[in-house]
Amino acid sequence: MQQPVFSLTISSPTNIALIKYWGKRDAKINLPINSSVSVTLNQRDLRTVTTVSASRSFSRDRLWLNGEEEDVNASRRVLAVFREVRARAGDLRDPKTGQVLVRKDEWDGLRVWVVSENNFPTAAGLASSAAGYAALTFALSKLYGLPDSLADELSCIARMGSGSACRSLAGGFVAWDMGQRADGVDSRARQVADEAHWPELQVLVLVVSDTKKTVSSTAGMQTSVDTSPLLAHRAAAVVPGRLAEMEAAYQSRDFGKVAELMMRDSNQFHATCLDTYPPVFYMNDASRAIVRMVHALNEAAGETVCGYTFDAGPNAVLLTLKRHLPTVLAAANTHFPPKRPVEATLASESLLAALKSTPLPPKLSSLYPLAPMRGAVSYIYHTDVGPGAMLLPDSESLAGEDGTPLRLAAPAASPPHQKLLLAAIAIAAGCVALKVARK
Amino acid sequence: MQQPVFSLTISSPTNIALIKYWGKRDAKINLPINSSVSVTLNQRDLRTVTTVSASRSFSRDRLWLNGEEEDVNASRRVLAVFREVRARAGDLRDPKTGQVLVRKDEWDGLRVWVVSENNFPTAAGLASSAAGYAALTFALSKLYGLPDSLADELSCIARMGSGSACRSLAGGFVAWDMGQRADGVDSRARQVADEAHWPELQVLVLVVSDTKKTVSSTAGMQTSVDTSPLLAHRAAAVVPGRLAEMEAAYQSRDFGKVAELMMRDSNQFHATCLDTYPPVFYMNDASRAIVRMVHALNEAAGETVCGYTFDAGPNAVLLTLKRHLPTVLAAANTHFPPKRPVEATLASESLLAALKSTPLPPKLSSLYPLAPMRGAVSYIYHTDVGPGAMLLPDSESLAGEDGTPLRLAAPAASPPHQKLLLAAIAIAAGCVALKVARK
Repeated sequence: MQQPVFSLTISSPTNIALIKYWGKRDAKINLPINSSVSVTLNQRDLRTVTTVSASRSFSRDRLWLNGEEEDVNASRRVLAVFREVRARAGDLRDPKTGQVLVRKDEWDGLRVWVVSENNFPTAAGLASSAAGYAALTFALSKLYGLPDSLADELSCIARMGSGSACRSLAGGFVAWDMGQRADGVDSRARQVADEAHWPELQVLVLVVSDTKKTVSSTAGMQTSVDTSPLLAHRAAAVVPGRLAEMEAAYQSRDFGKVAELMMRDSNQFHATCLDTYPPVFYMNDASRAIVRMVHALNEAAGETVCGYTFDAGPNAVLLTLKRHLPTVLAAANTHFPPKRPVEATLASESLLAALKSTPLPPKLSSLYPLAPMRGAVSYIYHTDVGPGAMLLPDSESLAGEDGTPLRLAAPAASPPHQKLLLAAIAIAAGCVALKVARK
Repeated sequence: MQQPVFSLTISSPTNIALIKYWGKRDAKINLPINSSVSVTLNQRDLRTVTTVSASRSFSRDRLWLNGEEEDVNASRRVLAVFREVRARAGDLRDPKTGQVLVRKDEWDGLRVWVVSENNFPTAAGLASSAAGYAALTFALSKLYGLPDSLADELSCIARMGSGSACRSLAGGFVAWDMGQRADGVDSRARQVADEAHWPELQVLVLVVSDTKKTVSSTAGMQTSVDTSPLLAHRAAAVVPGRLAEMEAAYQSRDFGKVAELMMRDSNQFHATCLDTYPPVFYMNDASRAIVRMVHALNEAAGETVCGYTFDAGPNAVLLTLKRHLPTVLAAANTHFPPKRPVEATLASESLLAALKSTPLPPKLSSLYPLAPMRGAVSYIYHTDVGPGAMLLPDSESLAGEDGTPLRLAAPAASPPHQKLLLAAIAIAAGCVALKVARK
């Protein structure tokens, strides 16, 4: 008998830290050595969509990411998220009627299929891990009927999947308080200001072309913790005060101060990577040229019009205000003309028009006298600050009614001997079929 | 009446810090925020030669650097060195006969001409400032008859010219103790081990091609002191212990430990530059590639065969031992083939022969899988550890008997209007001469 499939779909944002998380005091449950704070990027432009389906007819849990099936059991962190959500399961109710669809005590008999897609490439280095684990955690929490009162625990569960994922559950400006407890119950996210607080704030992402494989964040930060004396000092003596300054500056919409602090913190994070042994390099010459250009631009403009930050990769994330956006975009587009022109990646016609008519500040060329760095940037995204993870209508489902993914990645080409074998089997089957037909 | 010219010639080495000096607590007399230690490079390969001449017939002090005259009075530091040496003047005695040539009380009537040349290009970024001020200080101290008992004070005078110059007055492994006093009397160099202590030690300098103008050390370190929280911690909490470790390791010829400490300290120095606001960048992508290659080489070799250090510029200075030199050179030459081939810059035939016959460690290509970075390195120097500043015979003098430089740089082309004027004068003079001749 065909079992019912209970399904829902959510979307979750990515986030960019302005005060960085780098280094764990507990690698098993992702407890950090310092607090951090991020802006949640708008899901209109960058998001992870996740459909979760539960059914008795599923024999095991399964997971597809961007069209490719992953082994659920291969990831300790995915298992942790499943386990922690299931331990808190309530009833699954129909959102319209309130009818109980799955009772709390019935969940053990149902397995779950997860289908997840990012609308931005993983190679873009835009923290898809944080977005993905936030999506998984949120989706499962809705499926398993966790009440909103468990929001703090949900934050901890996302954190266990991937530390900074907890910051994607909320919108706007979100802190991750490091906590003091060994069990991590107090290491979770806290919304500092929501996404409506500062509508002027704008974000440009300069995706830097880089073929070099970089050290994973988890490996890199462990080596940093183990070997960098400067990192320990940063965590203990610099971040607490800086974070408080940053929260206050964001609350009062002091863009100059926010920009200064984010630039200093990005540089300090990368400084601790360099102080690691062996050293870890995430920024490249293009990243550094962008840094120089931003400082020159701010000086040429006579005020702070732009701040930069870099994560564990060469991409630049620039913050600015609506009124400065054409100028900042013009400077970026002029000095780092992207391989895919902005006409292809920027949705706003008015912004593209403003770009054409906005002159660069006169002093910029003398303060930043270098020729355009062609090919350094692959493309430029424009986005702003947006909401946290949210439910989507079933029309956005990534799965069919039976729970299987609607879109799968093209299968890898079969090896030659497999093709030969399949051909032989097909021929043999064809011959048998022919004989049967002739009888 | 022609006045006698008293002259002598010295040579002075450059030095490379293995624990870095970066940041002053007093910019007027160059007192550092932490101690440092360096190896003195062999003057056989890199040196500054300086001839100083004194005479009553000189109306003023003059100074030529690499064939170009500089304004003595334009440099507060040059004036400081002159002043401090003169204040301690003794008699100038003929070195052969002991006869007094200039009495202590006669010096006021004599002015000094200084002719100085580096045998390495300034653009090579090899600390020519330290070598130059050490040379000036030492040369003047010999001319003005300062006794050897004033060695400590001489160290302070060189320091006042350029901080790290004090380390070039001695050979081998030389520390610059930061001192505690405000007057700087205790901020001076101390020889940890002489140049004969570790004959195995070898140095390769990879001069990295870089057209970008970098921030001067003096300006950069001031901004670092003013803005980097990590620098303050480095100076107070990291360097003292690390320096003690380094001295002990050098004394016991523990190459693995010396190499590890020098690499960590170079990286930490550059980390504090990145933590500066605005950030200061001295290393470039070629520098970082060299770093990666060295770590891969040490891993492939199964032991530490090489250490790197970078000053305020992109050049790499590699330390190794005689037995590893062909391997290290082969790795550098393969992955960073210099624009000027090593056959042109390395004097040792046996080393060049060894280079041809030395295979790279088998695991290197998998640990460092990148294609050779052509054009990144301009040329490669080979040298070792050598003595401090020393007297040279008069046959090496850079000046004629009248004190003027034997070699001047080609004069700059005259501006057009000057040429026109000179031509007009010449024609007029020619006409007058003709008229006079015809009378």
